Amino acid sequence: MSDHVYKKVEITGSSAIDMEDAVKNAVAKCSQSINNLDWFEVTETRGHIKDGKVAHWQVTVKIGFRLD
Amino acid sequence: MSDHVYKKVEITGSSAIDMEDAVKNAVAKCSQSINNLDWFEVTETRGHIKDGKVAHWQVTVKIGFRLD
Amino acid sequence: MSDHVYKKVEITGSSAIDMEDAVKNAVAKCSQSINNLDWFEVTETRGHIKDGKVAHWQVTVKIGFRLD
Amino acid sequence: MSDHVYKKVEITGSSAIDMEDAVKNAVAKCSQSINNLDWFEVTETRGHIKDGKVAHWQVTVKIGFRLD
Amino acid sequence: MSDHVYKKVEITGSSAIDMEDAVKNAVAKCSQSINNLDWFEVTETRGHIKDGKVAHWQVTVKIGFRLD
Amino acid sequence: MSDHVYKKVEITGSSAIDMEDAVKNAVAKCSQSINNLDWFEVTETRGHIKDGKVAHWQVTVKIGFRLD
Amino acid sequence: MSDHVYKKVEITGSSAIDMEDAVKNAVAKCSQSINNLDWFEVTETRGHIKDGKVAHWQVTVKIGFRLD
Amino acid sequence: MSDHVYKKVEITGSSAIDMEDAVKNAVAKCSQSINNLDWFEVTETRGHIKDGKVAHWQVTVKIGFRLD
Amino acid sequence: MSDHVYKKVEITGSSAIDMEDAVKNAVAKCSQSINNLDWFEVTETRGHIKDGKVAHWQVTVKIGFRLD
Amino acid sequence: MSDHVYKKVEITGSSAIDMEDAVKNAVAKCSQSINNLDWFEVTETRGHIKDGKVAHWQVTVKIGFRLD
Amino acid sequence: MSDHVYKKVEITGSSAIDMEDAVKNAVAKCSQSINNLDWFEVTETRGHIKDGKVAHWQVTVKIGFRLD
Amino acid sequence: MSDHVYKKVEITGSSAIDMEDAVKNAVAKCSQSINNLDWFEVTETRGHIKDGKVAHWQVTVKIGFRLD
Repeated sequence: MSDHVYKKVEITGSSAIDMEDAVKNAVAKCSQSINNLDWFEVTETRGHIKDGKVAHWQVTVKIGFRLD
Repeated sequence: MSDHVYKKVEITGSSAIDMEDAVKNAVAKCSQSINNLDWFEVTETRGHIKDGKVAHWQVTVKIGFRLD
Repeated sequence: MSDHVYKKVEITGSSAIDMEDAVKNAVAKCSQSINNLDWFEVTETRGHIKDGKVAHWQVTVKIGFRLD
Repeated sequence: MSDHVYKKVEITGSSAIDMEDAVKNAVAKCSQSINNLDWFEVTETRGHIKDGKVAHWQVTVKIGFRLD
Repeated sequence: MSDHVYKKVEITGSSAIDMEDAVKNAVAKCSQSINNLDWFEVTETRGHIKDGKVAHWQVTVKIGFRLD
Repeated sequence: MSDHVYKKVEITGSSAIDMEDAVKNAVAKCSQSINNLDWFEVTETRGHIKDGKVAHWQVTVKIGFRLD
Repeated sequence: MSDHVYKKVEITGSSAIDMEDAVKNAVAKCSQSINNLDWFEVTETRGHIKDGKVAHWQVTVKIGFRLD
Repeated sequence: MSDHVYKKVEITGSSAIDMEDAVKNAVAKCSQSINNLDWFEVTETRGHIKDGKVAHWQVTVKIGFRLD
Repeated sequence: MSDHVYKKVEITGSSAIDMEDAVKNAVAKCSQSINNLDWFEVTETRGHIKDGKVAHWQVTVKIGFRLD
Repeated sequence: MSDHVYKKVEITGSSAIDMEDAVKNAVAKCSQSINNLDWFEVTETRGHIKDGKVAHWQVTVKIGFRLD
Repeated sequence: MSDHVYKKVEITGSSAIDMEDAVKNAVAKCSQSINNLDWFEVTETRGHIKDGKVAHWQVTVKIGFRLD
Repeated sequence: MSDHVYKKVEITGSSAIDMEDAVKNAVAKCSQSINNLDWFEVTETRGHIKDGKVAHWQVTVKIGFRLD
C-alpha cells in the first residue's frame, strides 16, 4: 500500500535577491510541469559577481517527487 | 558502432520488507516507462521509524539505461 | 506551530543475521531510552570475519528524533 | 589551563521563514538544555514542498559546546 | 528578467578514441532532444579493458541547460 | 582568443545579519584588491554562538577571477 | 607485542540473491588464498538489470587481514 | 548473545603539546562520564595560531562505546 | 554460474604525452602479470611541472579483474 | 636542509582544444609570475556548450610550488 | 565592527621529524610574509619513503588569517 | 624512459606509542616484501581505547611503489 517510489531531479535556480529566493524559483519552475513535489536537498551554492558585488545567487537543489 | 550513450536517473524506492525490496520497487517502477535499463548504483539508504521500529526502508539508486 | 527541532544520534548495530537486522537492533536499543524516533540514515556498513566467513554485520545509522 | 574539550551534537531545525531561522530554532532549542554553546557548522540543507511551494526549510547543524 | 532556471541531466558517453570524444558523444546525443545546452561537469571517468588494452573510455557528465 | 585563465581564492566572510551578508562582506573585501571578480562557490557555512544565540554567520567562499 | 599490521584488499562480489550474499561470495573467494581475514567495509553497492529486473547485486568491500 | 549496540559521540580535544595529546584529552574527558569506551576515529584536525606559532592542536574524534 | 568475484588494484601510470597515455601505461603494465583485466576507474589526476611546463601526466586508476 | 615548504594555488585553465591543453594554459599563465612550479592536481573538469557542441574545456588544478 | 574577513591559503610543510613539525614548518614559513595568522586545518597527510623508511612527513594545511 | 608505473597498497599499522609510530610500523612491514617503496598517503586514523585510555593508534596508509 505504501511502497511509494520517488524520482529526484537536479535543478539550479538563480535570483538577484537571496539564496532562499533562488531555491523558490527552482521549485516554482519545476512545479509547472511536475506534480507531487515533495522535498528538496541543496547540493551546491554559487553565484555571479559583477562590478565587485554579488549579482546572482545560484542554488542547485535535488527535488524529489512521488511517481504515480 | 559501440559508442553507446547512457542516461542515469535517480530514483528512491521504499519497502516495508528490506533494502533489496526497496531497490526492486525502484527498478520495477522505472522499467514501466523506460526500456533498456542496464545497471544501478546505490547512493543513499534511509528509512522511517514508527513506534520504535523500522517501518520503511528507503533506498535511492541511480539507474542507468542506454539511449537509442 | 510546526517549527519542530530534531536531534540525530549515531548508533552502530550488529547482527549475525543480515544488514537489516543490524539496523533493527540499533533502532530497538535506541528506542528503549528515546521517544519519538522518526528516521534513520545508514552512514557505514562493516563487519567482522571469523574462520573465513562473515561473523557479524555492523551497520552504523544516524537516528533522528523530535525534541519536545 | 586551556586544554578545553568540546562536544558536538547534530541538530536539525526547521522553519517556514528561511534558512537562518531554521538554524536559530536549532540553536534556541539546544540552548534550553545545554550551556556554553560555542559554534555551529551547517552539514545539510533540505526542505519540504507543499502545493508546489517551499513549506519548510530544514537545516542540520553540528553545534559545539565546551564540556566543563 | 534574468532569474533563469536550469536543469542538470547525468549522461555517460563512451568512445574508443579518448576521454574528450566520450564527452562529445554524450553532449551530441543529449543535444538531439534538448535545446539550450549550456555547460557540463565531469563526475566520473571509467573504461572497459579488452585483451589487456583500453577498449572504451566512459565519461559521465552532468549537462546543464536552461528551462524556458 | 578566449582561452582565459582564472584563479580562485578562498575567503571567509562574517556577519551578524545573515548568510548572504557574510558572502557579500567576503566579496566586498576581496574586490578592494582584485579586479575582474567573476563567480563564487560556497564551501562552508559556520557561525559563532553567544549567550545561546547565533552571534555571527561565517561563510567561506571560493572566489574566481580572470587573470589578465 | 601487539603492534599488528593489516592489509586491505578491495574485492567485488556478485550474487543473484541479495547484498549479503554478494559480500559472502567476496569473502569466501578471498579466504581461499588469504588467511587471517579480520573485517570488511562496504565501499560500493551496484547491480545489473536485465529485462527490467535486478539480475545481480554487486557489492564492493575492502577486506582487512593481519600480516604475519 | 553478541548483538552489541554502540553509540558514537563527537568530541574535540585540544592541547598545546601535540595531536596525540589532544586526542588523549578528548578520551579522558569522555571517560569521566561514560563507561565502556571502545574505539575512536579522527574526523578533523585543526589548530589555533598565536604570534605566528601553533598555540593549540584541536583534534575531533568520534568515540564509540557499547550501550549496555 | 555467474556469481563472479573481482579484485581491484590501484595503479598510477605516468606519461609525457597525455592523460589517456598515462592510463594506457598503467593498464599495459598491469596486464603483464594479471589476466582478465575488465575495467578501470580514474581516481586521481596529477602531474609534474618542469621549467614552467607540464612534464608528466600521472593518472591513478583502480583496475578491476575477475578472480578465477 | 630539506624541510621545504610549498604553497598550492587553485587555477582554472580553459581551451577549445582538449583537457590537457586547458591544464597547460593554467600552468603557463601561472609560471609567468611564479617560479619553482612543481606539481599539479586536477580538482574539477567542466566545460561550456554552444550550439550543442563542446565549446571550451575548463579544468581546475591546484598548482604546488616551493617557497624559497 | 566585528564583520571580519579572513583568507585561507594552502601550504604544505615537510619535516624529517614528525607530523607536528611539518605543520610548524608550514606555519613558520607562512608567518614570515603574512601577519594575523589565526588558525589552520589539516587537509592532507603524506610522506616520502627512502630505503624502506619514512624519510619526510608532508602535511598540507589551510591557514586562515584576518584581512585588515 | 620515464613512464614509470606505480602500485598503491593499503596498509594499517598500529602502535601503542603514537600516530607516527603506527605509520612507521606499516611501512616497515611493507618493506619486508616490497622494494622501491616511494611514498605514503594517510587515509584513516583510528584507535582502540582500553580502561578509558588510548591503547593503540591505528593509522591506515596507501603506500606507493614503482613497478619494475
